[in-house]
Amino acid sequence: MRMSQLFTKTSKTAPSDEMAKNAQLLIQAGYVHKTMAGVYSYTPLGLRVLENIKRIVREEMNAIDSQELIMSSLQRKELWTETGRWSDELVDVWFKSHLQDGTEVGFGWTHEEPIIELLRNYLKSYKDLPISVYQFQNKLRNELRAKSGIMRGREFIMKDMYSVHATREDLDVYYEAVIAAYKRCYDRLGIDQDTYVTFASGGAFTKFSHEFQTICEAGEDYVYLHRGKNIAVNEEVIDDAIVELGVDRSELEKVKTAEVGNIFNFGTQKSEEMKLVFTGEDGQQHYAYMGSYGIGITRVMGVIVEKFADEKGLVWTENIAPFKLQLVAIGERGGELANQLYGTLMKAGVEVLYDDRAERPGVKFADAELMGMPWRVTISDRGIDSGEFELTSRQTGETVTKSYDELVAFFID
Amino acid sequence: MRMSQLFTKTSKTAPSDEMAKNAQLLIQAGYVHKTMAGVYSYTPLGLRVLENIKRIVREEMNAIDSQELIMSSLQRKELWTETGRWSDELVDVWFKSHLQDGTEVGFGWTHEEPIIELLRNYLKSYKDLPISVYQFQNKLRNELRAKSGIMRGREFIMKDMYSVHATREDLDVYYEAVIAAYKRCYDRLGIDQDTYVTFASGGAFTKFSHEFQTICEAGEDYVYLHRGKNIAVNEEVIDDAIVELGVDRSELEKVKTAEVGNIFNFGTQKSEEMKLVFTGEDGQQHYAYMGSYGIGITRVMGVIVEKFADEKGLVWTENIAPFKLQLVAIGERGGELANQLYGTLMKAGVEVLYDDRAERPGVKFADAELMGMPWRVTISDRGIDSGEFELTSRQTGETVTKSYDELVAFFID
Repeated sequence: MRMSQLFTKTSKTAPSDEMAKNAQLLIQAGYVHKTMAGVYSYTPLGLRVLENIKRIVREEMNAIDSQELIMSSLQRKELWTETGRWSDELVDVWFKSHLQDGTEVGFGWTHEEPIIELLRNYLKSYKDLPISVYQFQNKLRNELRAKSGIMRGREFIMKDMYSVHATREDLDVYYEAVIAAYKRCYDRLGIDQDTYVTFASGGAFTKFSHEFQTICEAGEDYVYLHRGKNIAVNEEVIDDAIVELGVDRSELEKVKTAEVGNIFNFGTQKSEEMKLVFTGEDGQQHYAYMGSYGIGITRVMGVIVEKFADEKGLVWTENIAPFKLQLVAIGERGGELANQLYGTLMKAGVEVLYDDRAERPGVKFADAELMGMPWRVTISDRGIDSGEFELTSRQTGETVTKSYDELVAFFID
Repeated sequence: MRMSQLFTKTSKTAPSDEMAKNAQLLIQAGYVHKTMAGVYSYTPLGLRVLENIKRIVREEMNAIDSQELIMSSLQRKELWTETGRWSDELVDVWFKSHLQDGTEVGFGWTHEEPIIELLRNYLKSYKDLPISVYQFQNKLRNELRAKSGIMRGREFIMKDMYSVHATREDLDVYYEAVIAAYKRCYDRLGIDQDTYVTFASGGAFTKFSHEFQTICEAGEDYVYLHRGKNIAVNEEVIDDAIVELGVDRSELEKVKTAEVGNIFNFGTQKSEEMKLVFTGEDGQQHYAYMGSYGIGITRVMGVIVEKFADEKGLVWTENIAPFKLQLVAIGERGGELANQLYGTLMKAGVEVLYDDRAERPGVKFADAELMGMPWRVTISDRGIDSGEFELTSRQTGETVTKSYDELVAFFID
């Protein structure tokens, strides 16, 4: 894409009403626009990042045979009274409104109850099981405070997945498959090295649930870590976990983390509450076993910003960057050759943000650093004279020089 | 996809609480699930249809240089007071709620005001224009009645697009380009022959807006049509239009239609209300010219159901069908050969719904008709013996026989 066509602009200063680094940088670089505290719109740049994250997560969920669907945001009160969770005392993040005839409705902050209503419509026999479904949903949560930018919004995108099984063993096997799939996601997203499967508080059915926690100064959690044994425990369950895991507290390192995923083994608790039953091989009715698995898509984007950004701006990991490179043209002849390179790379399917603006080199370099594409390529008159062009890594800041053909080969392979 | 893996099931009877044919059939065939009147979830089958429609619309909007973004559903009251449209008297479809501190918030029923707020943040100079942006948004409208299935929902997906221009002439040129792009959309969606650019009521700035109306018995509009002259007029403006267009009412045919798109030329009206200004070449501040362009994605899906479905069930047009063909396996040897064909077609990227269930042929054929893929292929023991297999068109009901190799060639080309 040509930057001259991009309607967003970078700003020289960070917005004064944002405390979170992720929101400051994303607004300054033109990736998001703030509607109100905790509510953001995503510009073409921001949407590209979100879609890249979604694509990775989608591929990994499809690979464990989950089926994508999309549920409604509007939800019926009756459904939530089945589990008691319509209550504002129990659930303090509801947005509610009412139809014109006065009927109360809620806006989806989670879809556990609605997915059970949907599935009990189709589930008859053990032969229908297992079932796994997921969606990318716009969740609405009436958070009291919203000061963490896109890491904790009043409106945010979540991948929520639900699986239903005939037996506890089958659920356990799937639960492990989800953990493996999540690890592949974080690996592809570029945050695997600092992301830990973490023991967290469970529910009625299990002692622990599992969170995926990424070491991040801007996070809201504290995790006790044993890097050698690859053990991580949320501080909320540290006392129980120490006993269970047989480790000594002194061996553990306390780190600040951000939750990037959370998975629950519900057992039959939810199914009993909402009568999700099936006919077993024995001809009898049984409650189904159920798991619930979430990844906050917008939150992951925020965490990646927080972890990798530096004093110059955003630093995207390779797989989620909106463009692979920012192509900076300098000078008249530089502009002509940059046009040619842009055409060649676009044709080969390489995503290029091409700074074709009539701006000073310094402005272009500063924007490239603020916007954070993995690579910057500079095509200048001087480069044409010397036959060597600059290729700069945003992550390391290192610049190497390459001939035109080498540049093409670097991006096209 | 193997039908044995699909968690949805067809139902023998239509739901009794739905009056609209589109909702009845979509529920019966397992494409949607009803949350409440006018609110539906889309199962994997339904989501595939939606994504196919979105893909077509996205490609055509990108082709006229519009940039995709995604805005928030939550909206600020202050913004809407700028145009007076926070008022429930003026806008009778608001869903509203409030933050925990009591601040009122609204849920997006349109994004005209919010997009102007977003754009005025970036728009400085005539050099920044034109700008065109679009999104696929989940709109929420508190409709008094919701009896038309997915054709008029309380929650629905809309492609809304907005363009901003320095001059009236530039807006006019783009407006015509949008009309052409919309025609290409309806062509690819398979409803071009019955879809007319229709004069409808304008606003403060123009006498008429333009609707795209598709002839459809389940529609809510009446249009006066001159097929020879390709003129269509919404009955709401028929008196004015007759004068303007110089046609005689007796020449016009009155038909029932469903609106599948609507485009508005706002002129500078919205920009004046909300102070969307730019610095012109003359160094002065000018109000920007603006157009607004919508296509109801879920509504188009509903219209296609209404138009093409028959007494046996759904009939999808080629480009939006969730699968190109339904592959029906009959008998043991038939099942083995069907497995082989399924593998071959999948490998070639052909979307196949493979009915591998242990069901009677009659059940499979009835489901294929209810579910409405463009083609049904039957691989049976008898076909293997004769060397000829049935290929049935859902639209015409005609069956031809083909050898195995001819079948493969038919779908792979």
